[in-house]
Amino acid sequence: MDATTKTCTPINFAEKLSLIAEHWPPRVIAELNDYQFKIVRIEGDFIWHDHKETDEAFIVLEGTLRIDFRDGFVALGPGEMVVVPKGVEHKPFAAGEVTMLLIEPRGTLNTGDEGGGRTAQNDRWI
Amino acid sequence: MDATTKTCTPINFAEKLSLIAEHWPPRVIAELNDYQFKIVRIEGDFIWHDHKETDEAFIVLEGTLRIDFRDGFVALGPGEMVVVPKGVEHKPFAAGEVTMLLIEPRGTLNTGDEGGGRTAQNDRWI
Repeated sequence: MDATTKTCTPINFAEKLSLIAEHWPPRVIAELNDYQFKIVRIEGDFIWHDHKETDEAFIVLEGTLRIDFRDGFVALGPGEMVVVPKGVEHKPFAAGEVTMLLIEPRGTLNTGDEGGGRTAQNDRWI
Repeated sequence: MDATTKTCTPINFAEKLSLIAEHWPPRVIAELNDYQFKIVRIEGDFIWHDHKETDEAFIVLEGTLRIDFRDGFVALGPGEMVVVPKGVEHKPFAAGEVTMLLIEPRGTLNTGDEGGGRTAQNDRWI
């Protein structure tokens, strides 16, 4: 990573991850128009939820991410991604620690329309 | 990568890249609402261009990507990304081969508003 411009700053995923110890709350690392790139460290089970208004992209950096759907699951490792269509109920699960990128519109909550105690504060940058 | 659901299909970047020999033309691998994820294999110099209507995200998978701006440059390796703001002239360059992801709205041309012989056919899926 190197930069001699004021136009924009390169972002290193490992460097951003090194600043996060906590599991689950996503942190924003970049914006693309009204979309955000978020980095997140997870382990264990999340809750069933959906996002009525938007698709959601997952890119795995480390570990094996499983996403359960009502009709089955996907499992992805580093160098793999999936787009969960809007309105589709899903439940992320990580048997071991997983680090990943989320790409979704600004304002998207981690628990979608479900709410509850697992809902993370939105729009936290790192 | 594993899936037992019809809801959505995981995408493996290396697998998609293995289907591309040609340098420069981006291929769409996924859509997130009206945004597209494209993979591209590049080497050498591109042309100066900008995208008047949109920011553009680059995520490097392999190699070292340099993006020149009128006031300097950034250089990024695997596990790094940058968002080039809309309207900012830039010129990608790869001394050796680079593979990367582009994330941008559907309809974004690789040469932006510049046109010319380096303009790739848009919306080609792989």
